[in-house]
Amino acid sequence: PAKAKSRRQRWDVKASEMANNTLNPIRAIVDGMKLTPNPDKPMIALSIGDPTVFGNLPTDDTVLQAMKDAIDSHKYNGYSPSIGYQKSREAVANFYSCPEAPLEAKDVILTSGCSQAIDLAISALCNPGDNILAPCPGFSLYKTVAVSMGIEVKLYNLLPEKSWEIDLQHLESLIDEKTSCMVITNPSNPCGSVYSKEHLQSILKVASRHCVPVLADEIYGDMVFPGCSFHSLASLSSDVPILSCGGLAKRWLVPGWRMGWILIHDRNNVFGSEIRQALVKLSQRILGPCTIIQGALESILNNTPQSFYQSNINFLKSSAELCFNELSTVPGLTPIMPSGAMYIMVGIDIDHFPDFSGDVDFTERLVTEQSVFCLPASAFEYANFFRIVVTVPEEMMVEACARIREFCQRHYRPRSRDSNELDQ
Amino acid sequence: PAKAKSRRQRWDVKASEMANNTLNPIRAIVDGMKLTPNPDKPMIALSIGDPTVFGNLPTDDTVLQAMKDAIDSHKYNGYSPSIGYQKSREAVANFYSCPEAPLEAKDVILTSGCSQAIDLAISALCNPGDNILAPCPGFSLYKTVAVSMGIEVKLYNLLPEKSWEIDLQHLESLIDEKTSCMVITNPSNPCGSVYSKEHLQSILKVASRHCVPVLADEIYGDMVFPGCSFHSLASLSSDVPILSCGGLAKRWLVPGWRMGWILIHDRNNVFGSEIRQALVKLSQRILGPCTIIQGALESILNNTPQSFYQSNINFLKSSAELCFNELSTVPGLTPIMPSGAMYIMVGIDIDHFPDFSGDVDFTERLVTEQSVFCLPASAFEYANFFRIVVTVPEEMMVEACARIREFCQRHYRPRSRDSNELDQ
Ligand SMILES: Cc1ncc(COP(=O)(O)O)c(C=O)c1O
Ligand SMILES: Cc1ncc(COP(=O)(O)O)c(C=O)c1O
Repeated sequence: PAKAKSRRQRWDVKASEMANNTLNPIRAIVDGMKLTPNPDKPMIALSIGDPTVFGNLPTDDTVLQAMKDAIDSHKYNGYSPSIGYQKSREAVANFYSCPEAPLEAKDVILTSGCSQAIDLAISALCNPGDNILAPCPGFSLYKTVAVSMGIEVKLYNLLPEKSWEIDLQHLESLIDEKTSCMVITNPSNPCGSVYSKEHLQSILKVASRHCVPVLADEIYGDMVFPGCSFHSLASLSSDVPILSCGGLAKRWLVPGWRMGWILIHDRNNVFGSEIRQALVKLSQRILGPCTIIQGALESILNNTPQSFYQSNINFLKSSAELCFNELSTVPGLTPIMPSGAMYIMVGIDIDHFPDFSGDVDFTERLVTEQSVFCLPASAFEYANFFRIVVTVPEEMMVEACARIREFCQRHYRPRSRDSNELDQ
Repeated sequence: PAKAKSRRQRWDVKASEMANNTLNPIRAIVDGMKLTPNPDKPMIALSIGDPTVFGNLPTDDTVLQAMKDAIDSHKYNGYSPSIGYQKSREAVANFYSCPEAPLEAKDVILTSGCSQAIDLAISALCNPGDNILAPCPGFSLYKTVAVSMGIEVKLYNLLPEKSWEIDLQHLESLIDEKTSCMVITNPSNPCGSVYSKEHLQSILKVASRHCVPVLADEIYGDMVFPGCSFHSLASLSSDVPILSCGGLAKRWLVPGWRMGWILIHDRNNVFGSEIRQALVKLSQRILGPCTIIQGALESILNNTPQSFYQSNINFLKSSAELCFNELSTVPGLTPIMPSGAMYIMVGIDIDHFPDFSGDVDFTERLVTEQSVFCLPASAFEYANFFRIVVTVPEEMMVEACARIREFCQRHYRPRSRDSNELDQ
């Protein structure tokens, strides 16, 4: 007699392990905080990594016009290839190509935001059981994506005292035969750091020595303050294959549009056709970014005036300087001056704040008392720092810094005893 | 002494198993075909499931205007929540809510096309080692997504002689305790079939009896010919929880825009908060669809005139009828009249075509001789049929049918012997 199949007798629908393992540390931490602002002070959020929220940093009219032209053309309503229109990929290739790291359309994969670029790159390079190296403090998506797929994440330290350069010894010590990718974020979220040519070359030496490909998250590429230079990792690499992830979100100030890309740099043909094919195949799951933006891309990249980029970066620099200068003289705080992107990290000398157990407690109370919200660096797996987003309008930044000062002055305790006293 | 770490000594970068397991059967089959058109006849592609390619089915001006208004508002450049703006989700909920299956904003998740909706739904419900049931012939993405994640796909048969209704006995026989989801495509790609209320109720009974949740792919919902009715699965379900996947692609004729959604129907709270949370978490990997389209969505749904939908559906019906009537009298072909969507399946009585080994061979030679390309049903894991897309302009359809007739007339061989002769 046929064996009766074992089937369900009652409803028992459970979320998949992948869903359960898709963790968002920022949400986990922020949702766990009691964020009740002081009713007497209007809330100032220095926490949101969205440069558009205050309205002071609009995108350029060229960008909007390019979109409207794409709509009016009636040419961009159908499906594009899943990795993007050839012409749009060509536009990105031309925009980022340089003699040291030439690019053609075939080296560009368009994605739904830099987030999907990161997702595709990790998905293409790594198997469950592999590990990737990621910065600490660092953007949380690398870990979210990797862990959900059973890939281990090893965090390498950044050194605040060296403007957040990578602790190369630590980085190298983490590599083993299961290391399938090294993530480098430059310029950095949350640090705002921009690495020198020499430091980038040292990073590449480590990757080269142990034959580990690099995922370069360069979404803040070119967003560096006057006087400082941005070097793409690819422009310095002769042998290490690099997937550089970027997009329109930050530099063009349209993060909601979800236009990102992967630039494949592989001059020694280490990736070969296999990784390229892998990226193409994986892109077919959701079929690429919105075609209207793809249609607008060439014009956005070629026609956005230099003055737009320049004035934004000038604003970011002056905002960062304002914040740095204000907070430098606040007792118990140690801001680290950034060189690019849109963030500044501020150290909390927690020994001087006995009222607080750590950065989460500190930032939570800053909301309760002063209605100022900064993201605790625990959200980036780092302790006793908080991150300020410098895209806020100047008057808000001034007011926020004043409130932070007041808060710190109230809670700061000069070291009442030296370490010897503990023994008494 | 510390054990020396085993590391790589030379470059050896391999694509992940997930990438290698991301298979696209349509590509696999089409790329394997030798498609060399007859140089004397212009190519006619009846294979492309993109209604915009011939320019005869433009989207409505309301839709384009809604996009331009969203751009001009300057309100939709920043990040939206990863499951979409509340207002846009509300607009979708209102559009699809009905007394039998009420929806609120909380029941809607916006996605990057219906493809991502399918990806999220499968990812949320299924673990590696589970299986899902999917239609045969059917849209290939279900299998592509599932197999890449180690989920088995069991194909249930559709019955051409019953207008592609599901073989319910076969469906039920496939269910076991590892069955975590049943995919129902209605209206169907590639069949163009639209299920009756009674058939849908029978399907739901099977799902209910074995407590299997349903992924209803209703991207062609409401695209049914006059005289026929579309019933959403959710409107007929009292207990079976349903994730209904849809989007703007087909009905609004803008597939490139990548706007899709999941409607969560769960009146008995079987999914509970767990599956909802799972969908939210998974959406955070790529952060939702383009905000401009989200901003335009309310206006698109509320202001697109009925006449737009009506005239499109009238066109599709008359095109399907034209094709059906023409091919019905072609020797050796058996078209199955569709009731909706934009496809018609045509059976090949392969015994009468000794020149061809099957549908792939047949359609390949149809290109070589007549420059007409139809997708062989092998691309949908089905044999001896081909699919015609009925969105092509009328004169092309007429010409294509004439060429198909000529082709069949040349290759058709009346049965020269009855089955008894085989024994002689
Ligand atoms: C370092 C870094 N990479 C990637 C992203 C994601 O970019 P997108 O919005 O294009 O997905 C962000 C967004 O904040 C980021 O800070
Ligand atoms: C049945 C079915 N589901 C889903 C899709 C994908 O839709 P979208 O383009 O919105 O991702 C298609 C596209 O052809 C389809 O035929």
